[in-house]
Amino acid sequence: MANLPGGTGMGMGMIAAEIERLDREDPFAGRRADFAIPAGVIYLDGNSLGPPTRWAAERLRSTVVEEWGGKLIHGWSECGWMELPNRLGDRIARLIGAGPGTVVVADSTSVNLMKALAAALALQPFRSTILTEEGAFPTDGYIAQGLCRFMDRTRRVKAVRAEAIEAALNEDTAVLLLTETCYRTARRHDMARLTARAHAVGALTVWDLAHSAGAHPIDVTAARADFAVGCGYKYLNGGPGAPAFIYVAPEHANAPAIIPGWMGHAAPFAFETAYRPAAGAARMRAGTPDILSMRALEAGLDAFEGVDLEALRAKTMRLGDLFIAGVGERPGLTLLSPREGALRGGHVAYAHPRARETLDALARRGVIADFRPPNVLRFGFAALYLSHRDVAEASQILRAVLSDLEDSSAA
Amino acid sequence: MANLPGGTGMGMGMIAAEIERLDREDPFAGRRADFAIPAGVIYLDGNSLGPPTRWAAERLRSTVVEEWGGKLIHGWSECGWMELPNRLGDRIARLIGAGPGTVVVADSTSVNLMKALAAALALQPFRSTILTEEGAFPTDGYIAQGLCRFMDRTRRVKAVRAEAIEAALNEDTAVLLLTETCYRTARRHDMARLTARAHAVGALTVWDLAHSAGAHPIDVTAARADFAVGCGYKYLNGGPGAPAFIYVAPEHANAPAIIPGWMGHAAPFAFETAYRPAAGAARMRAGTPDILSMRALEAGLDAFEGVDLEALRAKTMRLGDLFIAGVGERPGLTLLSPREGALRGGHVAYAHPRARETLDALARRGVIADFRPPNVLRFGFAALYLSHRDVAEASQILRAVLSDLEDSSAA
Repeated sequence: MANLPGGTGMGMGMIAAEIERLDREDPFAGRRADFAIPAGVIYLDGNSLGPPTRWAAERLRSTVVEEWGGKLIHGWSECGWMELPNRLGDRIARLIGAGPGTVVVADSTSVNLMKALAAALALQPFRSTILTEEGAFPTDGYIAQGLCRFMDRTRRVKAVRAEAIEAALNEDTAVLLLTETCYRTARRHDMARLTARAHAVGALTVWDLAHSAGAHPIDVTAARADFAVGCGYKYLNGGPGAPAFIYVAPEHANAPAIIPGWMGHAAPFAFETAYRPAAGAARMRAGTPDILSMRALEAGLDAFEGVDLEALRAKTMRLGDLFIAGVGERPGLTLLSPREGALRGGHVAYAHPRARETLDALARRGVIADFRPPNVLRFGFAALYLSHRDVAEASQILRAVLSDLEDSSAA
Repeated sequence: MANLPGGTGMGMGMIAAEIERLDREDPFAGRRADFAIPAGVIYLDGNSLGPPTRWAAERLRSTVVEEWGGKLIHGWSECGWMELPNRLGDRIARLIGAGPGTVVVADSTSVNLMKALAAALALQPFRSTILTEEGAFPTDGYIAQGLCRFMDRTRRVKAVRAEAIEAALNEDTAVLLLTETCYRTARRHDMARLTARAHAVGALTVWDLAHSAGAHPIDVTAARADFAVGCGYKYLNGGPGAPAFIYVAPEHANAPAIIPGWMGHAAPFAFETAYRPAAGAARMRAGTPDILSMRALEAGLDAFEGVDLEALRAKTMRLGDLFIAGVGERPGLTLLSPREGALRGGHVAYAHPRARETLDALARRGVIADFRPPNVLRFGFAALYLSHRDVAEASQILRAVLSDLEDSSAA
């Protein structure tokens, strides 16, 4: 492990032998081969786009050739296409602590967020505020603002800083809309606590799990979350723009669907004139499910079969800790993520004035990370396909790149 | 052509030699090989789910292996993924007579219909009625009702019979929502005439082109349609549940988007707090585009390269005429579609009391058609992959199946 001379930035005093031991004892070591990642690449951007599973291409081939081409229209009944959104939803349910029939896969995260918010607002006719967090992923705010604009004009969005959320909850709060793991800093919210606070003032909750599902275990049931949405293409490895999911708590099974498409109807093929919603989350299906993309997502979910989510969480946290320790301190480099693993999701973010250049230099050296303007670098630690050695090595490459940049500015 | 003895049901007196001549002179004869349809199958259900092109499987493979797996996150910039919805929209634009930048591919037809209706309603603050047709595809009505329920309560949906539409247009009509080709009967509306009538009373139009795009040339520009939506998985052969499209007329380029997702933002990666919509139809993009499904749709659109749409239309009409003539009269069989080709879209529908049994018997004899409850049989005539001989043969197989059913009830 030439890149890891003892003592450089390894604040924890982690040594090569220790890293080797962690990899030897890694319960997921055998799963690296499940993913198709180019040789020589350390992929630290699975929080933005997960890599394909090794069987994704074959899954797509057989879906196109044998199902679509071979069965044509009969694929809908003979290949289980019609139930695929529900079946995949039930598989995602395990990852987020939801019961059967409460999750469906459909549309994009943005569209599902609209459905969840609209349903929650419909259940809260006499309250006007959607309370959310400043600096959350922009699409969530856009969607919330769009709903207020298009629905009755008494609704409004109020965004406050994370530490002000609890104090801002009051009897006018219709919905608390929060992202469990911040896309930028990876700081996690305490879902159970904030949901309880929201419920205490009579508000409902909508949780965005885009950066949570597949990174660490979530328990929407224990937290008593009302609605949740999440993304198929990050830690679930469903492919670029993969279909997203939506969770509806059992007690809101009768909440109305703002996009009452025929596939959310109780009997889509009865062609009834009046809309009669399906039971539970199934009503949050809208148009015809996108089968090719759902098969790719299914291939991604296959990689989670048999995965102990607590062990996954422990490894993700350890990888993040290892990276932070390995990178250590550098001039201009500011850790944006919580240093404490328990407060952090699957990635680690830093601010650096030359973040964009750093990203490109890392890529030239085989480390793929992620940049968010103006100055944020994100490093994602997906536990199913990264080794401790990968992460330790990436931390040293980042040190080297920063050191080169410092030298070039000094020169 | 053993199945076509002169005189059986060929009301037009069409003979085998004539059918052979039509196939010889068919400008699309060479394109049959572009589609992967099982040997021995006459596929008359491309109006419900088009078959894959021969290159769809390879397109998906290279997208998964080379783009997603090979480029990972860099696929968004290096493989043109980000612009794919606009690029595919511009290709569909040719099929529907739209200008560049006025069509994007996104989401499902249901979701796009919601966007189009919401935008049109927003442009009509002082009118309350969405006028539509009784018996149109149910999801359109559901979506319209859903909007009225969730938006301000002064809006309502009024459905009238086709022949009553013009008389029902008045100064309270906000939007005229119509399907150009009826999913059931294939009866076409005169888009230019009805749009002009709507405009004459100050109403806007939203056209559903699900059964039109790729079946016959549409000219949204000449018709002065305001908004239109359509389907990727029927005549466009984009795969089961393929992404749909939405058209926004240039004069409505500033109409608001009800799903203001980040991908419809003028600068999605600037992560601005406030939503600032992209120009034109691009604002109708919502969440992250579904790249795998879009590549399959792209493969379907490739089959339209160089296709003369007027010639396509002429052949589709001829195939329908040939089928109607070949089937002739049978006890209990009622033609639901216009007999006159000019009034008909790409399919031909019949009612028959034993429609379901007929469908199954046809399938056992290699003819795949489509059933809509309670008693409707639909036969789709996609001109790119069907020969005149296929259609003549299918007509005789239908006669034979019906004759067997008649015998079995008489016995």
